[in-house]
Amino acid sequence: MSNRIIVIGSGAAGMTAASEAKRTDPSAEVTVFTDDEHVAYSPCAIPWVIEGKIGRKDMVMHDPSFYARERNINVITRTRVTAADHVNKIITAGGKDHSYDSLIIATGGSVFIPPVPGTGLKNLFRVRTVNDAEAISGALVRTKKAVVIGAGIIGLEAASALRMRGKDVTVVEMLDQVMPRIADSDIASSVQTYLEEAGVKFVLGTPLGSVEGKDSVSAVTAGGKRYECDMVIFATGVRANLEIPKMLGLDIGELGAVMVSPSMSPYRNGVPADDIYLAGDVVQCSSAVNGRPAMSQLGSTAVRQGIIAGRNAAGASLTIGPTVSPWISVIGEMEIGGAGISEGLAEWYGIKTTSGSSKGYTCARYYPGGRELQVKMIADISTHAIVGVQMIGGGVNGRINWMASVIASGTTVEKFLHGGENAYCPPTSMVRDPLFDAAEDLSEKLKKQEF
Amino acid sequence: MSNRIIVIGSGAAGMTAASEAKRTDPSAEVTVFTDDEHVAYSPCAIPWVIEGKIGRKDMVMHDPSFYARERNINVITRTRVTAADHVNKIITAGGKDHSYDSLIIATGGSVFIPPVPGTGLKNLFRVRTVNDAEAISGALVRTKKAVVIGAGIIGLEAASALRMRGKDVTVVEMLDQVMPRIADSDIASSVQTYLEEAGVKFVLGTPLGSVEGKDSVSAVTAGGKRYECDMVIFATGVRANLEIPKMLGLDIGELGAVMVSPSMSPYRNGVPADDIYLAGDVVQCSSAVNGRPAMSQLGSTAVRQGIIAGRNAAGASLTIGPTVSPWISVIGEMEIGGAGISEGLAEWYGIKTTSGSSKGYTCARYYPGGRELQVKMIADISTHAIVGVQMIGGGVNGRINWMASVIASGTTVEKFLHGGENAYCPPTSMVRDPLFDAAEDLSEKLKKQEF
Repeated sequence: MSNRIIVIGSGAAGMTAASEAKRTDPSAEVTVFTDDEHVAYSPCAIPWVIEGKIGRKDMVMHDPSFYARERNINVITRTRVTAADHVNKIITAGGKDHSYDSLIIATGGSVFIPPVPGTGLKNLFRVRTVNDAEAISGALVRTKKAVVIGAGIIGLEAASALRMRGKDVTVVEMLDQVMPRIADSDIASSVQTYLEEAGVKFVLGTPLGSVEGKDSVSAVTAGGKRYECDMVIFATGVRANLEIPKMLGLDIGELGAVMVSPSMSPYRNGVPADDIYLAGDVVQCSSAVNGRPAMSQLGSTAVRQGIIAGRNAAGASLTIGPTVSPWISVIGEMEIGGAGISEGLAEWYGIKTTSGSSKGYTCARYYPGGRELQVKMIADISTHAIVGVQMIGGGVNGRINWMASVIASGTTVEKFLHGGENAYCPPTSMVRDPLFDAAEDLSEKLKKQEF
Repeated sequence: MSNRIIVIGSGAAGMTAASEAKRTDPSAEVTVFTDDEHVAYSPCAIPWVIEGKIGRKDMVMHDPSFYARERNINVITRTRVTAADHVNKIITAGGKDHSYDSLIIATGGSVFIPPVPGTGLKNLFRVRTVNDAEAISGALVRTKKAVVIGAGIIGLEAASALRMRGKDVTVVEMLDQVMPRIADSDIASSVQTYLEEAGVKFVLGTPLGSVEGKDSVSAVTAGGKRYECDMVIFATGVRANLEIPKMLGLDIGELGAVMVSPSMSPYRNGVPADDIYLAGDVVQCSSAVNGRPAMSQLGSTAVRQGIIAGRNAAGASLTIGPTVSPWISVIGEMEIGGAGISEGLAEWYGIKTTSGSSKGYTCARYYPGGRELQVKMIADISTHAIVGVQMIGGGVNGRINWMASVIASGTTVEKFLHGGENAYCPPTSMVRDPLFDAAEDLSEKLKKQEF
């Protein structure tokens, strides 16, 4: 009998897992259940849908019929999984029971809506689904003033997009800097200044008080002040959807997501549950920097985990490494990215760090058309291992991946500095990459720490 | 008494070494001797001077007076070192003796001119010095047809630049593909096609027979055919300038350059010569892939070695790692790059390899303005270590440096594939980087090799 694999969730993690399972075992019977009506789309694309750079249809890679036709995968949309029984290996969806041999949980996360009055009003949006993108786009024509709650990546990308569409935009953030979870204040303030110069206003260190309005939103309050608006976007972070994992009795980690082994299997009271695999935002990762729990919640991580979960569900025995979660965001013309941990997060972990910095260009100084690049590099004072990097400017994508590899392999600043190499051609590079200048600065700071 | 440091050579390696020596020991007396009239310039910029993208002055970073004024380094130009005596630690230059405590040799290399008739004619050029750049630029107005001898990076960049200036350009190459030393024929043929589409003609597998003309060149012959031209550019490779090293009795390696220890010191009859340091094209490197001798001859390597040589000459005790020599070239709108060894070079080393490939984009498929990227990744069949990569298209620079780091640390294909991570944002990246698709293809080919 063929291997019955059920996937719950149709985002990047779920659809990748389904495709990889089928590719690994073509005889497997692969079924995807999702309460969404769309599958295989890129939530990361929504800011560019808002901006009008890409169409709403562009963000959807494939529709369910593609999976049936091209991959022989059965995708059942708008159907909620209401029960899951790990003893009999049955899930209930659409009122019917479905048996599985292997179950893949890719239920993702949901946007956290702060518990304040007025969040049931109209013209309040999230940046998560195709329907969210359509709803925001549809509301733009009647929007003059927008308030974005939350100054993380999604919030800032949405704020930038709304500003590009000519809206009056205010960002309200509970913490005292933009990008508080992933960037340090020095890099964050460059991003904030860039957006302020584009006309975006910021209210930092101020939690949302309430949403006001009669039928539709007319204002929000924060820190005792009132900000008039006709659109609110909640970019307040994503929390793992734990309904199914809890039904199955899976162990939940300290960061509020499901703990998994390197094979992407969960635990039940500390015992591995080998017939279940997880992938995506529902998963608690471990940090490559120190092995401690970490949340990744990135599209690229979802795909990476989906590949392992899908193949293992179909009989492979692959393992995934811990994560340094390289991320990149594009705001206007500016790229911002990072990998590893920030100085703020290091402090939370109890790791003593110091940092070095540099400024360089994406081409030789004398070559026309180059873009500036600012680098911050962070090392553990005791081991000299590079534990994090943050960058802003041009040419960030390749350098972030480069540093992700360097950080994940535990490289010291000195080894990176004297063992590392970079390619050089005047139109694409400086003869010595700005990353090495940051490492040099960091190395000198570490030397001073020794005395 | 202050440490007397003499540097011979004023290219990237020499001037970097001089500056780093002075920075490390500000009390040192640092003197640079060079037979060139210019210092601290970028030979890699010459193709863009020919193309007219940058001015001739742009390629010179600093003049000698800058070093005297800003760094208290004495630079003596147009002065040849005619003798060197390691027993008394004296060099002779401009008819005078100069004592040193530490000597840095950064004499670089010279373009190899094939021993054929006619190489003394006018309008024959090299792509090496500021004077070469000026001579080529000055001759452009009276040039209709140019022949470039040698289809390495410099030859192709020069050919592309001349074509951009409207010249009729033919490239003559002894071996049967373009970029024969560093790229495999599959990648090389994409480069050749791109240049042919721009109008450049190729004569491959054909050594230069002769240069013809009365006073000035009027044709070259190759393979029994005659190619009319009024300009010839020799891009025939660079050989280390060994005059000074031989005077000092230093050991020369099997690739015709000076053998050095990880501290950039040479050997004399196998015994380390600790008061001498070397950097740049005069040095024989060792490959990070297998520890075997390798020539790097890149501007970025010259700077990297110059830093170590300069600091060590001033009292530091730093070591440099072996090299994977990441390189990048820009031809028209196309970037081509590589790191580690090609399949051709692997065969020469006796390493059995297989390769994987992929095609991807520099942004999400649906995002406008992306560029295609073609990747070839090479692994050692027995160890599965990634030993080389070649890329062509857009977004090459960052990925080459990333892979240089991966190759230098001996990473296997499987570890890269399941442990590696990439950042993702639709305008700058695919959700899974094309490097991982190439690694996937390579991993599957390796599996097949096992049976």
